[in-house]
Amino acid sequence: VQEPSCHPVRVGAIRVGGPGLVVMAGPCAVESAEQILGVARAVKAAGAHMLRGGAYKPRTSPDSFQGLGRPGLELLVLARHETGLPVVTEVMDPRDVALVAQYANVLQIGARNMYNYPLLREVGQAGLPVLLKRGMSATMEEWLLAAEYIRAGGTDTILLCERGVRGTPSMARNVLDLGTMVLAKRQSGYPVVADPSHAAGRRDLVIPLACAAVAAGADALLVEVHPDPDRALSDGQQSLSPEQFVALMGRVRQLCRLAEPVVEGGE
Amino acid sequence: VQEPSCHPVRVGAIRVGGPGLVVMAGPCAVESAEQILGVARAVKAAGAHMLRGGAYKPRTSPDSFQGLGRPGLELLVLARHETGLPVVTEVMDPRDVALVAQYANVLQIGARNMYNYPLLREVGQAGLPVLLKRGMSATMEEWLLAAEYIRAGGTDTILLCERGVRGTPSMARNVLDLGTMVLAKRQSGYPVVADPSHAAGRRDLVIPLACAAVAAGADALLVEVHPDPDRALSDGQQSLSPEQFVALMGRVRQLCRLAEPVVEGGE
Amino acid sequence: VQEPSCHPVRVGAIRVGGPGLVVMAGPCAVESAEQILGVARAVKAAGAHMLRGGAYKPRTSPDSFQGLGRPGLELLVLARHETGLPVVTEVMDPRDVALVAQYANVLQIGARNMYNYPLLREVGQAGLPVLLKRGMSATMEEWLLAAEYIRAGGTDTILLCERGVRGTPSMARNVLDLGTMVLAKRQSGYPVVADPSHAAGRRDLVIPLACAAVAAGADALLVEVHPDPDRALSDGQQSLSPEQFVALMGRVRQLCRLAEPVVEGGE
Amino acid sequence: VQEPSCHPVRVGAIRVGGPGLVVMAGPCAVESAEQILGVARAVKAAGAHMLRGGAYKPRTSPDSFQGLGRPGLELLVLARHETGLPVVTEVMDPRDVALVAQYANVLQIGARNMYNYPLLREVGQAGLPVLLKRGMSATMEEWLLAAEYIRAGGTDTILLCERGVRGTPSMARNVLDLGTMVLAKRQSGYPVVADPSHAAGRRDLVIPLACAAVAAGADALLVEVHPDPDRALSDGQQSLSPEQFVALMGRVRQLCRLAEPVVEGGE
Repeated sequence: VQEPSCHPVRVGAIRVGGPGLVVMAGPCAVESAEQILGVARAVKAAGAHMLRGGAYKPRTSPDSFQGLGRPGLELLVLARHETGLPVVTEVMDPRDVALVAQYANVLQIGARNMYNYPLLREVGQAGLPVLLKRGMSATMEEWLLAAEYIRAGGTDTILLCERGVRGTPSMARNVLDLGTMVLAKRQSGYPVVADPSHAAGRRDLVIPLACAAVAAGADALLVEVHPDPDRALSDGQQSLSPEQFVALMGRVRQLCRLAEPVVEGGE
Repeated sequence: VQEPSCHPVRVGAIRVGGPGLVVMAGPCAVESAEQILGVARAVKAAGAHMLRGGAYKPRTSPDSFQGLGRPGLELLVLARHETGLPVVTEVMDPRDVALVAQYANVLQIGARNMYNYPLLREVGQAGLPVLLKRGMSATMEEWLLAAEYIRAGGTDTILLCERGVRGTPSMARNVLDLGTMVLAKRQSGYPVVADPSHAAGRRDLVIPLACAAVAAGADALLVEVHPDPDRALSDGQQSLSPEQFVALMGRVRQLCRLAEPVVEGGE
Repeated sequence: VQEPSCHPVRVGAIRVGGPGLVVMAGPCAVESAEQILGVARAVKAAGAHMLRGGAYKPRTSPDSFQGLGRPGLELLVLARHETGLPVVTEVMDPRDVALVAQYANVLQIGARNMYNYPLLREVGQAGLPVLLKRGMSATMEEWLLAAEYIRAGGTDTILLCERGVRGTPSMARNVLDLGTMVLAKRQSGYPVVADPSHAAGRRDLVIPLACAAVAAGADALLVEVHPDPDRALSDGQQSLSPEQFVALMGRVRQLCRLAEPVVEGGE
Repeated sequence: VQEPSCHPVRVGAIRVGGPGLVVMAGPCAVESAEQILGVARAVKAAGAHMLRGGAYKPRTSPDSFQGLGRPGLELLVLARHETGLPVVTEVMDPRDVALVAQYANVLQIGARNMYNYPLLREVGQAGLPVLLKRGMSATMEEWLLAAEYIRAGGTDTILLCERGVRGTPSMARNVLDLGTMVLAKRQSGYPVVADPSHAAGRRDLVIPLACAAVAAGADALLVEVHPDPDRALSDGQQSLSPEQFVALMGRVRQLCRLAEPVVEGGE
């Protein structure tokens, strides 16, 4: 009954899909140097392995904050320099892939873009690992075939991220579909990441859903953390405060070991 | 971040919603003395606390096996006498409630009958704890108001059972909606039970979903076990063999403690 | 491309599933003599063929108005005597079937009870046509097998009623699934009824959805009409006023002919 | 109860959203000169107003036929020259918008790209009307805000196309959500187009769903027609043959008038 192993994806000194859970945490959007540095230090101190944060944000309304763009990428690099945490960040436009790839360690494809095939081909050529979120109502087959577009571009270091599906009368914004997550890993051999923040859509469900995902076999978590969630420019209602993130890490450590850096030459 | 406590429901020497996880296991349907006794012994040996099994089965087709009826109830009592495991069994018809209540320890309302208000009122008058499954696409409000029908009948020892919801492109038959499970407990104070078997609809997802539910905060699990799943008269494709159930219990014990019998006078 | 014919169901002098559209209209619940007589006269004057109205109401909360019960049935008979309109009314409890059958011309099974198999068997033995609503998230196969439970009881005069399904991000409360309605008729040979009121869940969508259903091939419509919708004891937000029902009939007449009474001996 | 008027969109001599129904028909993908010319002549003869056909196809698998690209656009222009039918065709990549705009009369955004905001901004700057399909599980709010991205680019000649939503147990591939279509028109003032082919996902439901959409108030239909559906390189199972399209037009003409060309100076 042990879940079959997958092909680990190396990001810096960390292996996603190897032994131990990987935690990626940070704000929905990069807002300022103070904000991203504060969060980066806090999540690093709590045990996170990677920093997430968006410089290009796919917002439902054209009048909402769309991200800082290139200056946001520069702030992510600043935070990486200070904390050593590799950076996961989203890219939305095939014309931006080369630029974003200069700054990021992992390129994220958001749920809204899972069917954006020109973008998938382009990120597949960028030479970086890709975190591919499942579309809001995508079947597993569509999800794995979207990964094939990335692979057709030349990349096979892919992380599949389950972030919940629509279409149910759930109290969560989306239902975290852990059964499909488990089978997607079994069938594809890619490591799987769970995003309890977007599944929950509300802060008070993030910890139980994170624990559930870990127990079901997630290789990594992707968690939204903001220094002052009620003032976040996006997704504040589902972001944890740094203190709540510490609590999450405590609960998760009761369920499993965290990943440890690969010691070069030491294996 | 500790989940708030609920009002435990006492069944025999066991408290559901107290410290420790309660496991209810057994076949979808009672088929024969040999079958139910064999399963009861096996799940008891593996650590289960209660025996589940149906004598009245709500089957999609009128031509499918509909359960043994009263002789099935007698076989459940036989298994209880031999193993000491209290019995959870379904009732579908308000005219059968008084009869089933003579045999059962917990009356189960299936997902198909969550909106069957005359039945809910009737089980509410039977003087036994009721396990109320969430309807296939019920909202949390509808589920908790269905519990109100039971309470209006006179019973407040209610267990809310999440068994997955329809309407998503999941690889599981239904998506186990753990967020709603958590909030239903917080809002109502009733203990919550997860049914990974009906959520999964396929054997190979039962263990990961059971673990997920426990990590999210389920007070109990309801699991289908059959001595020979491929020959089961119903739900065979989602039933665990006794060996697989032992594996499930092993995995669950890594995540939490199991409930222990209440020692009278010793508290 | 003409839709195949079905087995018409005779109700009084009207054939559902014969040439011409049948319209069943009336309030969600019978509230008083004045209310039901007023609506019955109004819908008759506008061209409706049958009167709908509930004496037993399956309400989400036990604290909501549950229907007048037997006095409600007597008021329906009063309205039938005055207008000549046959009566469609819901039954929820197998123990009430014999009683309701003394008053009704068509027994209605609501969406909440589509999986209530003891009830289906019982109405199948009552010797009256049955209007079977599709469950909120039922598959076509489940719906047609529910009809088999009725047929197993002895009745094959069955009307299948599509009332919308859950699980989509629609602005309507439920999405009227006209494709499944069409195929259910083709496969089973039963006439099909559309309920635009419960699909819409809001008054301002009832007319367009009624027209859509007729154009797709519905044999009958089931429409909620109330003399003063804003004061209705149930479902007011989706009920048409008598004036709005006249407008609906006008629109529907532009799309198709209405059914005419069968002249005995004259065919 | 007459539906409120909208702001018509002029395409060649035709007004979508003016009096009379507009029909856009043609193959899923342009495959060859013979195929597209044959279909164009056939749908023109049957009364269609515009030709649809894809040169860039968003296919679920990277190994499926992806469209002919620029040569496909040239074949569409050839068909327009011969028949006079304006061309609706899809664009998937913001880098292709300028090119496609040289050939098309209406730019189509497919359901998979409704959330592709860089693409929406780009088509908004192309100076052509845009047909915006609703995402597979998009809310009305998300759909109308996607239109705002196009408007922010500079275009307000937008056609909203309902093509069915996922997430229900329908026998159709997607459920045509006519209630949301009606409200989207009321709220935005944009004309609405229904795509019964993608909603149905099967040929035998296209005509009833087309009729339903027209009766509910669609301003236009978008219908897949192929000279030999069983040999189509994509979407064959939902394409009508030319003969079936003639039947569809006959049924639709019984429900409403078709749009007629605007006579310049004659209004």
